[in-house]
Amino acid sequence: MGAESVWSVDPRTGERRGNEPVAVVSGPAAVDAAVRAAHAALPALADRARRAALLRAAAERLHAAGPELVAAADAETALGAPRLTGELARTVFQLRYFAGLVDDAAGPGGFLDVRRDSADPALAPPRPDLYRVKVPLGVVGVFAASNFPFAFSVPGGDTASALAAGCPVVVKAHPDHPETSERAVAALRDAAREVGLPEGTIGLVHGFEAGPELVRHPLVAGVGFTGSPRGGRALFDLAATRPRPIPFHGELGSVNPVLVTGAGLAAPGAGEELARGLAGSFTLGMGQFCTKPGLVLVPAGAAGDAFEKALADATAQAPAGVLLDARMRDAFLTGFARRAGLADVQTLAPAGPAATPDAPQAVRAGVLSVPARAALRGSHEALLEECFGPATVLVRYADAAEADAVLARLDGCLTATLHTPATDPDATARLAALARFAGRVLFGGWPTGVAVADAMHHGGPYPASTSTSTSVGATAVERWLRPVSFQTVPEELLPR
Amino acid sequence: MGAESVWSVDPRTGERRGNEPVAVVSGPAAVDAAVRAAHAALPALADRARRAALLRAAAERLHAAGPELVAAADAETALGAPRLTGELARTVFQLRYFAGLVDDAAGPGGFLDVRRDSADPALAPPRPDLYRVKVPLGVVGVFAASNFPFAFSVPGGDTASALAAGCPVVVKAHPDHPETSERAVAALRDAAREVGLPEGTIGLVHGFEAGPELVRHPLVAGVGFTGSPRGGRALFDLAATRPRPIPFHGELGSVNPVLVTGAGLAAPGAGEELARGLAGSFTLGMGQFCTKPGLVLVPAGAAGDAFEKALADATAQAPAGVLLDARMRDAFLTGFARRAGLADVQTLAPAGPAATPDAPQAVRAGVLSVPARAALRGSHEALLEECFGPATVLVRYADAAEADAVLARLDGCLTATLHTPATDPDATARLAALARFAGRVLFGGWPTGVAVADAMHHGGPYPASTSTSTSVGATAVERWLRPVSFQTVPEELLPR
Repeated sequence: MGAESVWSVDPRTGERRGNEPVAVVSGPAAVDAAVRAAHAALPALADRARRAALLRAAAERLHAAGPELVAAADAETALGAPRLTGELARTVFQLRYFAGLVDDAAGPGGFLDVRRDSADPALAPPRPDLYRVKVPLGVVGVFAASNFPFAFSVPGGDTASALAAGCPVVVKAHPDHPETSERAVAALRDAAREVGLPEGTIGLVHGFEAGPELVRHPLVAGVGFTGSPRGGRALFDLAATRPRPIPFHGELGSVNPVLVTGAGLAAPGAGEELARGLAGSFTLGMGQFCTKPGLVLVPAGAAGDAFEKALADATAQAPAGVLLDARMRDAFLTGFARRAGLADVQTLAPAGPAATPDAPQAVRAGVLSVPARAALRGSHEALLEECFGPATVLVRYADAAEADAVLARLDGCLTATLHTPATDPDATARLAALARFAGRVLFGGWPTGVAVADAMHHGGPYPASTSTSTSVGATAVERWLRPVSFQTVPEELLPR
Repeated sequence: MGAESVWSVDPRTGERRGNEPVAVVSGPAAVDAAVRAAHAALPALADRARRAALLRAAAERLHAAGPELVAAADAETALGAPRLTGELARTVFQLRYFAGLVDDAAGPGGFLDVRRDSADPALAPPRPDLYRVKVPLGVVGVFAASNFPFAFSVPGGDTASALAAGCPVVVKAHPDHPETSERAVAALRDAAREVGLPEGTIGLVHGFEAGPELVRHPLVAGVGFTGSPRGGRALFDLAATRPRPIPFHGELGSVNPVLVTGAGLAAPGAGEELARGLAGSFTLGMGQFCTKPGLVLVPAGAAGDAFEKALADATAQAPAGVLLDARMRDAFLTGFARRAGLADVQTLAPAGPAATPDAPQAVRAGVLSVPARAALRGSHEALLEECFGPATVLVRYADAAEADAVLARLDGCLTATLHTPATDPDATARLAALARFAGRVLFGGWPTGVAVADAMHHGGPYPASTSTSTSVGATAVERWLRPVSFQTVPEELLPR
């Protein structure tokens, strides 16, 4: 009996691509082999200069392979060449960015977070010489996301930050882009070989069962995950119930509320501009962003009505498109229809199938509207939860108390956005209220687009994240390190 | 039906103290009330100057109440006035230390960990203005330890670091010192009132069932725990299986190995000095330290034999003493006898009852010795695990490979100690090997005594800790914070 095949599928048609599978499902032995090979690479990765070289070589090779990578990713995800070209550029930038962090790791503000104390026998208790530094956790398991075949997948932020920390990686490929995954891991492994690191530094496994196998493996020391609440929670539970539990840094979904105040709609043309901006943001990448604004609080009354109309118009003009796979398409259409069918919910723009000859699986975006008091009913909970895909829900509130009541019902979020003038006397209080349940708070603008930056935080209270960490930006590397204090160790014997 | 009573017990006699209970068991309603009162204090604690004032006022009041606190703690724990006076001084120092960290929180290296990025539209992806800062998690549940009625209990490091972070606290008192807990919380609440904070800022609950109740409470956002592997793991599991899981920072036990090399015993008198030092360390506080050296790797041969003899002599001279409670006394005597009865285990000093008229429950310290190859047998696993109380196990190794094999079998540890000359050519490699499973690595000296310092790390791989955090030192405060990024927020609207 041979191993099960892994096929690449064209989401535009739902058909398999080519006559050959692109990989085979990884059984327990294959997962074990990948983890052991990664573990064997740990000592070699202790050399920081080599780690930085690996990240730069990987960036170089991914950039060089750009056309082939983008073509494969577009064929598998239908995200389109322009978006995927941009995503690959981001991924290349991110690898170089983490290489720079490795260069600076031992300096002030560097991620080794070195702290020193000199002996002081007069203190109570007496203080010895102490040197604290961070060390790599060990092998990191990475679960690739469906919606970012580069930036949150094989060569993405989890992999880059783990390698920067000195942790070898085994990636569980997402079934929506196995060919892209194979091409990307080949580039990474070539880069490893080029800089004299073992190929096992980066492993790749395929298949549903490989996921739990990876999380349970005794040599896996931490996990990064981007995906759905259901899948993420199941793996979180596995990580927590191991004989030796390990950190599970999961990003599980977010509704990303936007609060538009009356004053935010007051300026001439403000409503139309916001409506255009929102339509662009919630349909970006066919709404398949973890930061998609999925719930927009809009005041009741004429200005809000005009905003609704402008949004319906802008949405009607958004091009139809294809979702990542058939399961997501079904979940999107079913989820939208279920919400649309709730009492007092009005459909401003109907999501639905929008087949073309080239893309029989295409869909169009949708917008719903509901009064806040209806949204607060127990029966209407789905309106306050993420609907993955190009849909958003307007919640019309009569007063600030109603808006606050809706916000108080939300789960933890990656982002929350406020649209109000800077002169709003309540602006500070509103921002503070949004920070209570979100990891990134925007004043104006839209939450889609997550900069790779020192001050970025991409995470939030559960279920946005399963930990207090970020998966994007400089501090993402902290997830894969633990501190060690060296006490009264002679200078010449301290780790570099 | 009234609430169940909580009595203070004299461990020297095993009898109840006084004619009145010191508290009542906290039922679900009492736990809920304490958590809600703490949650209501969150906004007031946002004022950092007030937090610092609270910590300083608490230090002042605990210092002033020193004689009464020490008398109560000695009566309940038998740890002795000198040790408890020192522990209280440490606790007072620790509160002031965290007050200083609050003063400096917003500055460079401060725990708010502020990071800023200015907009750069030329990057891919473009970077907006970003301001990242850390905010308090919410109400923190603290589980007091048996063995440190001050420093790791009501007014201890978890409480001090949580308050420093801006998190109100509800402490689950340890049943070994309920009177001390009541006195300490009164001092803390008086301090809160003095600085204009609600008394609910610090709550106290009693009773076994109050523990799970606290961990499950929806308004509890994080937990600090110091205690046994069994109790800690049960609570960790509860925290992980909540609908919204919360961070559980538990310290669950550690065997704290010491590696003595042949060269470490070579200098004249070195063995005798090490033996005296070890005897002092493993019997300190009747061996009831989480950092007690419980396993000592000693080379086979004449120098090791002389060390054994010197240790047996030093242990015989150690005074008998009383353990924290009857359950621990039973577990210690049973655990020692079980280990002593294993094949090829030699008893160098017999632990056992050592009653005096004043302290009928007193015990004496014990030492076992076993060849490394015997210790590696599956049947002998208990020798590689913590035995709480004044006992240590010498493991005699024939060569470095045997010593390494024993170290490789150990669970994660809080500390690991190396005794070898600085000229040992393998010293660096040995330190690195110890850092693989320990959170603090000592070159010489003994692991008991944990300085409150910027560079301290008191934690280690599971089960030493359930997370990568420390419960002592400056970075302990990181456990109770999460980052938030503010994007394109005008300067004047940013949180202070």
